[in-house]
Amino acid sequence: MSNLAVIGAGSWGTALAMVLADNDHNVRIWARRSDQVNEINEHHTNSKYLPNITLSERITAYTELDKALENVEVVVLVVPTKAIRENVQHMIKFLSKPITIIHASKGIEPGTHKRVSEMIEEEFSKTNLLQNVVVLSGPSHAEEVSLRQPTTVTVSSESHEASELAQDLFINKHFRVYTNSDLVGVEIGGALKNSIALVCGLTNGLGLGDNTKAAIMTRGLAEITRMGVKLGANPLTFAGLSGLGDLIVTCTSIHSRNYRAGKMIGEGKSLDDVLASMGMVVEGIRTTKAAHELALKWQVDMPITSSLYAVLFEGLSPNQATEQLMGRVKKHEVEQLSVDFQ
Amino acid sequence: MSNLAVIGAGSWGTALAMVLADNDHNVRIWARRSDQVNEINEHHTNSKYLPNITLSERITAYTELDKALENVEVVVLVVPTKAIRENVQHMIKFLSKPITIIHASKGIEPGTHKRVSEMIEEEFSKTNLLQNVVVLSGPSHAEEVSLRQPTTVTVSSESHEASELAQDLFINKHFRVYTNSDLVGVEIGGALKNSIALVCGLTNGLGLGDNTKAAIMTRGLAEITRMGVKLGANPLTFAGLSGLGDLIVTCTSIHSRNYRAGKMIGEGKSLDDVLASMGMVVEGIRTTKAAHELALKWQVDMPITSSLYAVLFEGLSPNQATEQLMGRVKKHEVEQLSVDFQ
Repeated sequence: MSNLAVIGAGSWGTALAMVLADNDHNVRIWARRSDQVNEINEHHTNSKYLPNITLSERITAYTELDKALENVEVVVLVVPTKAIRENVQHMIKFLSKPITIIHASKGIEPGTHKRVSEMIEEEFSKTNLLQNVVVLSGPSHAEEVSLRQPTTVTVSSESHEASELAQDLFINKHFRVYTNSDLVGVEIGGALKNSIALVCGLTNGLGLGDNTKAAIMTRGLAEITRMGVKLGANPLTFAGLSGLGDLIVTCTSIHSRNYRAGKMIGEGKSLDDVLASMGMVVEGIRTTKAAHELALKWQVDMPITSSLYAVLFEGLSPNQATEQLMGRVKKHEVEQLSVDFQ
Repeated sequence: MSNLAVIGAGSWGTALAMVLADNDHNVRIWARRSDQVNEINEHHTNSKYLPNITLSERITAYTELDKALENVEVVVLVVPTKAIRENVQHMIKFLSKPITIIHASKGIEPGTHKRVSEMIEEEFSKTNLLQNVVVLSGPSHAEEVSLRQPTTVTVSSESHEASELAQDLFINKHFRVYTNSDLVGVEIGGALKNSIALVCGLTNGLGLGDNTKAAIMTRGLAEITRMGVKLGANPLTFAGLSGLGDLIVTCTSIHSRNYRAGKMIGEGKSLDDVLASMGMVVEGIRTTKAAHELALKWQVDMPITSSLYAVLFEGLSPNQATEQLMGRVKKHEVEQLSVDFQ
């Protein structure tokens, strides 16, 4: 397919463009900065985001959104969740026919509690320019994908044909793509796991070890599942690649932005200092706010997410939060398994 | 409780004795070697297994099994799975009244396919000296428990009273103990996860990264769950601390013996060389044999465990195994979730 654009040339957008180019697609990639566009076109590198990686000549970069989108049929949208609406609004101006969007962003919007696909649909609602939305999610560090290390992801959409289209575009022997019809579960799992990664980082910053982290991850997945089921997801989705798989990668890697932000908070830094020193979006912080609102609204018990909310926004100390979560001595309690979906 | 013995003074037996001592129990601990027993009694250390840790004076060590077991009511049995039957046979000689055994061993016996509690019951079957068997399992590095870092475990038994007895003995503010009535699921999860940890180590030895490991862990838990359900377990147990939690700790820690053995195999060492260089029991290798037999017997699809079996015992190269597992290009496949319990 020649009319294929990737919007967003960070590490994940670039890595996904590489997978598409490996599958013999000509890929247009859009970036805001002209120096980055020139580097991609002249040197076939994107060294700030994927150091030491050579890009395919099938990838052409543009700063002009109209040129990147000319006659496209499929757009792979890989921008921060906070910037989804703004980017879609820009895109709409330059589209002349309906497209399918494959997005790879994770998060829930505070206030509206919309998932990413819902935000995209809402922005397109007054047009007839959106055919389908697909989410692509799973345990996938961009650097490893760019090195063609074996990776598995899930694609999901309300349209099975659109899922299969996305699968066909991306699947190859290094990058295995599964379809799952549970769009809600795939998006919710990818979003809510960022709060759990923050808490794992936080316990690490407090000097606690692997036993604590494994407990947080296990019970964290249970509370994500409870919330997801309340919102209409299939509980089994959370045991799959976009749930458990992504949780593992995010909570056990120092490369994860959310994990690193949590670690700094555990070490005693303030939220403002952490955000300033990261110089990047920490999606888990926004999502924690949205998840806390959802937990209250739907009366779902999410003790780990709620403790994190209290640390981030209500002045609870990380030590107090950990004691709250782990230190209660309560006899004869049965392990709260993910069966408690109510 | 004064009549409490821990059989086995390795790192885990010693750490569990510390938890009991923290809860004001006087603990007798049995070890084979007199120099180790003298060190524990004279210096209150067990430096080979838990370096830089001071033990409570409530812990007294014995080389004589009869003295360790005199008038005991509860025995905490922490020996390699391979040595369970032999140790129980010795113990029986010195018991004068029925006891409850809390075991903390993980594995399945090749040939018989017995779980640890079943082996214990079988050895006691011609006596009236066994009241109950409880398993204690969960994400718990001994070193972290000995440092009183927050840790969570599950206890399970066919007798709810015995589970609660074990919970009461061990629970404190650092060591949180949950009960679960699914003995089969708790024992199967703890045993089979060792094969998945070996494969995670193996992919690491091949130079593969976190994306691959997360895929192996996610799909590994699904195949453990399929097997467990076939054997009568509750699928939700595998989403809990003794399933997912223990899997996370074992697959993400270089301290795990099974992970390290897998890593060496991935780096190209032979099984014999690995076993010789470890100088310790690698439980996952025996368990892989038993799990492979079980998968054939019950016709349960366990692709990761079966690939590992082929590497360990049939000469398949680690690279071929990984390609088999990850490299298949197959279109339009739906992610095989743990729903496939048949």
